[in-house]
Amino acid sequence: MLLPMLVDLAEGRGEWHVFLESALITMLTGGLIALACANAVKQGLSIQQTFLLTTGVWVALPIFGALPFVLGETQSTYTDAFFEAMSGLTTTGSTVLSGLDTLPKGLLLWRGLLQWIGGIGIIVVAMVFLPELRVGGMQIFRSEGFDTFGKILPRATQISSSISTIYVSLTLVCAGAYIVAGMDPFDATVHAMTTVATGGFANYDASFGAFSAGAEYVCVVFMMLAALPFVRFVQVTALRDVRPLALDSQVRTFFMTAVAIVALVTIWRFSTGDASGEPAFRKVLFNVVSILTGTGYASQDYGLWGGFAVALFFFVGLIGGCAGSTACSVKIFRYQLLFASIKTQLKRIRSPSGVFTPRYAGVPVTSEVMSSVMSFFVFFIVSMGVLSVALSLTGLDFITSVSGAATALANVGPGLGDQIGPAGNFAGLGETAKWMLSFAMLAGRLELLAVYAIFTTRFWRA
Amino acid sequence: MLLPMLVDLAEGRGEWHVFLESALITMLTGGLIALACANAVKQGLSIQQTFLLTTGVWVALPIFGALPFVLGETQSTYTDAFFEAMSGLTTTGSTVLSGLDTLPKGLLLWRGLLQWIGGIGIIVVAMVFLPELRVGGMQIFRSEGFDTFGKILPRATQISSSISTIYVSLTLVCAGAYIVAGMDPFDATVHAMTTVATGGFANYDASFGAFSAGAEYVCVVFMMLAALPFVRFVQVTALRDVRPLALDSQVRTFFMTAVAIVALVTIWRFSTGDASGEPAFRKVLFNVVSILTGTGYASQDYGLWGGFAVALFFFVGLIGGCAGSTACSVKIFRYQLLFASIKTQLKRIRSPSGVFTPRYAGVPVTSEVMSSVMSFFVFFIVSMGVLSVALSLTGLDFITSVSGAATALANVGPGLGDQIGPAGNFAGLGETAKWMLSFAMLAGRLELLAVYAIFTTRFWRA
Ligand SMILES: [K+]
Ligand SMILES: [K+]
Repeated sequence: MLLPMLVDLAEGRGEWHVFLESALITMLTGGLIALACANAVKQGLSIQQTFLLTTGVWVALPIFGALPFVLGETQSTYTDAFFEAMSGLTTTGSTVLSGLDTLPKGLLLWRGLLQWIGGIGIIVVAMVFLPELRVGGMQIFRSEGFDTFGKILPRATQISSSISTIYVSLTLVCAGAYIVAGMDPFDATVHAMTTVATGGFANYDASFGAFSAGAEYVCVVFMMLAALPFVRFVQVTALRDVRPLALDSQVRTFFMTAVAIVALVTIWRFSTGDASGEPAFRKVLFNVVSILTGTGYASQDYGLWGGFAVALFFFVGLIGGCAGSTACSVKIFRYQLLFASIKTQLKRIRSPSGVFTPRYAGVPVTSEVMSSVMSFFVFFIVSMGVLSVALSLTGLDFITSVSGAATALANVGPGLGDQIGPAGNFAGLGETAKWMLSFAMLAGRLELLAVYAIFTTRFWRA
Repeated sequence: MLLPMLVDLAEGRGEWHVFLESALITMLTGGLIALACANAVKQGLSIQQTFLLTTGVWVALPIFGALPFVLGETQSTYTDAFFEAMSGLTTTGSTVLSGLDTLPKGLLLWRGLLQWIGGIGIIVVAMVFLPELRVGGMQIFRSEGFDTFGKILPRATQISSSISTIYVSLTLVCAGAYIVAGMDPFDATVHAMTTVATGGFANYDASFGAFSAGAEYVCVVFMMLAALPFVRFVQVTALRDVRPLALDSQVRTFFMTAVAIVALVTIWRFSTGDASGEPAFRKVLFNVVSILTGTGYASQDYGLWGGFAVALFFFVGLIGGCAGSTACSVKIFRYQLLFASIKTQLKRIRSPSGVFTPRYAGVPVTSEVMSSVMSFFVFFIVSMGVLSVALSLTGLDFITSVSGAATALANVGPGLGDQIGPAGNFAGLGETAKWMLSFAMLAGRLELLAVYAIFTTRFWRA
């Protein structure tokens, strides 16, 4: 909070005290909690504590991260401020603010920082905590890249530092590339942070529509990079060998998916005669990659591209990037496992007496992992259904409810329709809807079951 | 085809020869195929043959069932006629015909018959073939009610005859009740057939809006009955004991689901002040039960009830009735199993070293059944996504594409939105969209994997 304070101080818009006040409140409360926890952490964490810690952090940070929006020039209600902060820390990128172009730079930087911190946070959680907790099939990555040390904390420290180095480097290179592509240093910094976090907060209401063609291409490259498993980057730099990344089955499938969808939409846009040439291809490439990686920038209102684009973007948002990246949603490896399972089913139907085991990257998948992945998918879809209906109860129409539920759970950012589509924002929703969506962003970011588990009575038994 | 011919003959509208021509074409082709198959059937069916037979019947019948619509007063294109016949035989009930009120009675009866035959057909397939084929978790009902004889055919004959008796009785009682409630005998007959089949074809463009309050209540009762496992009715009548039905876990969950949704929508309708009193409750009851059981009649355009109703009806259509009934969609027992699995996951998260097995009606579920059910669900959702995008490619808007895909795969009938919603019909869709939907109705009715299996190369290996 000190960094945005200095920026505001430099800009001389008299908003710097906002961050000072926010920082004081945060430090005071944080200090007390840290004191209370310090003893527990020293002894290593139990399963129960790990869950509470993870979810607790993602609830506590937005509570305080919201303060600058309440105290600052936006004078938001606490609901709006919490929504914005949660949207930031979960790297969702849905916004309730409009008139971004005229906001104080400190607040814009604050939004960028929230996403940037959320992005690195989730990689660490995904790599360290979730596999141990056997949530949503993430245990398949348990022994990948790093050996498990048994205790959670030592490993966490080790991985966190390697990955943080990569994360910071990627952000710096991205910012540099943006400056080369014509952005001013401030925009370059904030957008580099929200790109690498696949977050999607932008400094302008027009999102990436405000920048040059070059910046769009740079952004595409870094959105794709940010959606790859970061542990592979660590291996690539450590071994000076690109194979761990290039041979990763998830990475390959992810690239093929991206190419296929971009090709499909490009062909369709060109063949309907709505658009042509490099600019049209660039818009397709940028917006498809933005939704597929769950970043959520828009460089054009694809809601106007017609029914096909709308339906496609809806379902593309449910695909997501690779596990172990900052990207969100169902994720590529789960679809790989789900399709492997369906393939096994088809074989079994044909030869009922045969024994078939689904495989991932050539290795047989245990039924425990498979049922974790499937439960995740079912739970994701059922949550989406229940949330859609709940949102519609607050008076929203069908497309807003369904796409709002999907975009929040998948942490994509924009929804569909006039209200929350790429050209709109979430300001007009009711208070209740905003709280529901905030909860959905949290649940989606922490792989659903990690959050829901806390609500079971069994969880609280010693 | 002879029955509708006689009706037309009696009505004197000169359409009777349509059915005669259709019947002749059908018999000629049918005879040739029967001759070719007779030899194979005598020896009992292999897995491969059973699949082909089941899918083959559901493809062949609409091919010929379409003829009266082409040759008759509707003078439909073959695409429309095939769509209508497939919609009938899969008990979907989506229609491309408007001006139903003025159609010859023979054609209306023909539509009713298609659904009625489709309804009894699917119960037999669901009870006899699918469990043997271990499709979509139906194997859980393998030893239920009847013992397996090892070979498929003898058991098929035995079950078919008991269930047919129940089916015919139910239809007769339903028709009688409709007459008491004020329908004329012809309407009562056709609607009894399409009610018991949870089909949803009606004789009037206004669907059940054309009938009395009493008829609506009668319909609710029989739609619910038609969505229960028919094998339980056989047991109840054979044992003169209602417990096999009343204690069935699927039946109980189904009733509780229906009550909960009706209560929710009623409270919402009353509290928003849009409607009140018995008529409003009746409209909610009727339309919710109609969609939940996958029947698809409408007695009011619930598309006008507001965003909540639209979103709710969309997801309710994805629930469905009980397995072993004429109802369709994902079905209650699958949700029971899916939730049991999620519950197990949550337990496992809390106590990673514990061993937990999901249970259905108190009995542990094998991992094979569980993975069948989950694969079904995943495949259902993914098919819906792909089909939605494909439909939108033909130029349809988002809500029409998504709800069209859902209603076809779930065999519900009406979609959402102005075009294919409860007040509209499917006539205005393109040829390609109609063929895609026809295929989806077939795939949905035969539990997806049964149909897709045929498209795998492995299937055709000896
Ligand atoms: K995002
Ligand atoms: K139906």
